[in-house]
Amino acid sequence: MKHIFFLLLFLSGFSNLAQTDAELIKTIYNTSLTDGHSYQWLDHLSNQIGGRLSGSLNAQRAVEYTRDQLDSIGLDKVWLQPVMVPKWVRGTPEFAYIEIKPGETIPVNICALGGSVATPLEGLKAEVIEVQGIDDLKRMDASQIKGKLVFYNRPMDPTLINTFSAYGGCVDQRYAGAMEAGKLGAAGVIVRSMSHKLDDLPHTGSMSYGELPNAQRIPSAAISTQHAELLSGMLKLDPKIKFYFKQNCRQLKDVQSHNVIGEITGSEFPNEIITVGGHLDSWDLGDGAHDDGAGCVQSMDVLRLLKESGIRPKRTIRVVLFMNEENGLRGARKYAEVAKLKGENHVFALESDSGGFTPRGFSFDCSDSNYQHILNWKPLFEPYLIHYFQRGGSGADVGPLKGNNNVLAGLRPDTQRYFDHHHAASDTFDAVNKRELELGAATMTALVFLVDKYGINPINTTQQLKD
Amino acid sequence: MKHIFFLLLFLSGFSNLAQTDAELIKTIYNTSLTDGHSYQWLDHLSNQIGGRLSGSLNAQRAVEYTRDQLDSIGLDKVWLQPVMVPKWVRGTPEFAYIEIKPGETIPVNICALGGSVATPLEGLKAEVIEVQGIDDLKRMDASQIKGKLVFYNRPMDPTLINTFSAYGGCVDQRYAGAMEAGKLGAAGVIVRSMSHKLDDLPHTGSMSYGELPNAQRIPSAAISTQHAELLSGMLKLDPKIKFYFKQNCRQLKDVQSHNVIGEITGSEFPNEIITVGGHLDSWDLGDGAHDDGAGCVQSMDVLRLLKESGIRPKRTIRVVLFMNEENGLRGARKYAEVAKLKGENHVFALESDSGGFTPRGFSFDCSDSNYQHILNWKPLFEPYLIHYFQRGGSGADVGPLKGNNNVLAGLRPDTQRYFDHHHAASDTFDAVNKRELELGAATMTALVFLVDKYGINPINTTQQLKD
Repeated sequence: MKHIFFLLLFLSGFSNLAQTDAELIKTIYNTSLTDGHSYQWLDHLSNQIGGRLSGSLNAQRAVEYTRDQLDSIGLDKVWLQPVMVPKWVRGTPEFAYIEIKPGETIPVNICALGGSVATPLEGLKAEVIEVQGIDDLKRMDASQIKGKLVFYNRPMDPTLINTFSAYGGCVDQRYAGAMEAGKLGAAGVIVRSMSHKLDDLPHTGSMSYGELPNAQRIPSAAISTQHAELLSGMLKLDPKIKFYFKQNCRQLKDVQSHNVIGEITGSEFPNEIITVGGHLDSWDLGDGAHDDGAGCVQSMDVLRLLKESGIRPKRTIRVVLFMNEENGLRGARKYAEVAKLKGENHVFALESDSGGFTPRGFSFDCSDSNYQHILNWKPLFEPYLIHYFQRGGSGADVGPLKGNNNVLAGLRPDTQRYFDHHHAASDTFDAVNKRELELGAATMTALVFLVDKYGINPINTTQQLKD
Repeated sequence: MKHIFFLLLFLSGFSNLAQTDAELIKTIYNTSLTDGHSYQWLDHLSNQIGGRLSGSLNAQRAVEYTRDQLDSIGLDKVWLQPVMVPKWVRGTPEFAYIEIKPGETIPVNICALGGSVATPLEGLKAEVIEVQGIDDLKRMDASQIKGKLVFYNRPMDPTLINTFSAYGGCVDQRYAGAMEAGKLGAAGVIVRSMSHKLDDLPHTGSMSYGELPNAQRIPSAAISTQHAELLSGMLKLDPKIKFYFKQNCRQLKDVQSHNVIGEITGSEFPNEIITVGGHLDSWDLGDGAHDDGAGCVQSMDVLRLLKESGIRPKRTIRVVLFMNEENGLRGARKYAEVAKLKGENHVFALESDSGGFTPRGFSFDCSDSNYQHILNWKPLFEPYLIHYFQRGGSGADVGPLKGNNNVLAGLRPDTQRYFDHHHAASDTFDAVNKRELELGAATMTALVFLVDKYGINPINTTQQLKD
């Protein structure tokens, strides 16, 4: 038995690179699944801190907690990068009802959209006009809109397999719905929550008035999908019913916050930077476990798992927990701005911001040659049922790092459950499965390991142009 | 615009088979995601009926409900197939504690294993000996075991990506643990629950005494993973602590139950039967939503989705809801026995019994030539992120249909969350995501559509031997 063991050990010395990589990747996965820190970090972020809206005390606590945790895992550098962020506050809980006739009302669940103005102190009551989107609104006569509440009720398309595509097909209502309705003299906006699930939870999210003058800025709120169905049904019975809502959210002055950054300095090419990250801020209704506590703790564990797996990176590996992705993207812009000022060479940047579900693969924003280069690694991921290596977007926070020939990437987990939780009170720690989170962290670590070992950009831009 | 429409319609007449198949499969998925019945059926099975242990009133109600639902969707035939099943009953809730010293106790969560005998009426208290499995037990001296409670505490291996492999690596403790300990004179058996998750829920499941005489049949129960950890920790501090448990489960006489069967009779080859199914019985602690309510309602919807998608099968498509998979497999054996008696030709049988999670693909138990034939269809599933087409097992219920040259298959969903729920009080409807369930039903329907259209077994056995 012992002889066989030594024989195997001897033979392994002759194994090709792929085998060695496969072994190291197996070590990474095993370490994440048996000794990962992502889940305990997420437990703290979710249950000891909670929702982390930019500019809030909780966001500050999250900055300090993650900085301390990165300090504790023995990185070469850990620092905070100051950034001014918007501070929008929800105020007291919103209140809304459908008024069938004076004195006969049905309470409904709403929440103010992030960035919205308040209603008047006494609330706002008006007739409702239901539309299926901004195009629908624009086809109408302004006289039909004036003084009314515009109710955007286009649902997410259930036939799209990638639920992010369905989200992308609806979110204009939430983001620009109030701006467009405000221009036409509407009194306010109610938007169907961005969720496939029929339930009672309103889903918040960012909205913008663009350059609209203050007088045209009207309050906007999300309504739960069940109550959107109810409101729509009641409007069919009686178009004259009224809707009342009250919210006292407001935008305060910008405050200082921070991106949290840690790095393992590269042993051979310290100037080539590989970034991995998520966003530390979250909406305030849940505890931000999936969006994007999961991405933060996975990114933190990438550096720890590399160390625990005995890998000494040649390039600099940096974890960045971006502040303010949800309502401003100020952290991402600041990080890219500073990187540019310092002339840093960001060769690769990976974001996890699609929930902590079972990983399916990655989406890559890069050149043909880099994509082909990366595709060579795909078989190494097959034992972990990672099969999705497609070109496409990366992540909002790494987007500003886009260069001529670097690679941006996004982790792509299973998306089916994500919008049940996204931006709602149901985005909580208990909705995250430990193994799924840890598999995501391991998958990210394995990719970072390969990028560090083999680099990207095997053909430089000049050569590409010559071909 | 109208011209383009007719041009497209005209051109589509010339599209190749693959395109037509792709279009039909798209229709199947769209129908499941917008008008599937699987979720509403599961709601009823889970929330209006609940746990459906073989021989129970609930199992009978489930038989009647699913028969009625199959009747309502306009199949060519619907019938009940009688089968005698074992009837084991849990009795009153189990009770257990760790006794540190007389009068100082800590309550712990246990549940009787299915098939176990009761403890004495006053319960059973004894010292505990912890082992890591049956091999470990067999290495011990009988004097170490006699009169004690054997505590099997080998956990599921977290490094195995397929959680069913980890389950397979542990379940002998549950199934045969009491039989082996009984032979050595143990007083009872406590088994660590088969779950990756550290929580407070005991997970039941079947066990067997084999041919052991009644005198050696000792009571066995599962303990929650948290309390298994607690018990193990306390035994390290003091090996003399005692464990008390009380359960009054018992095995009653066999009773009559039924498999529920419905079919669409084939238009060209009615004697070639394609079977799709799950098992209607479940354990009693939860409502059996994942195991295997999901598989039943998905299988029912396969026939309905074929009809709704305008597909008229050439072969006979049969849905079978098997009774008694959990503690006897009597329904599956009866179905295969009757099929053999009637000389039925079962060319293909698909089972869904791995939870209602996002489908990843299928496992096929078949010949090389059939596997190669089936692999041709894999690209048709890529738009739905179905990538797993591997050879391997199928399902316990379709297993007895194994023939010389037919194909058995199992739906393979994402497995990471499954054992958090399996056989425990947490196997409930709320743990099933509507879209994930519907995607599974559509994926099964698409495969059944292709098997019906193209058949299997392009090379017969004789030809294979000649090659």
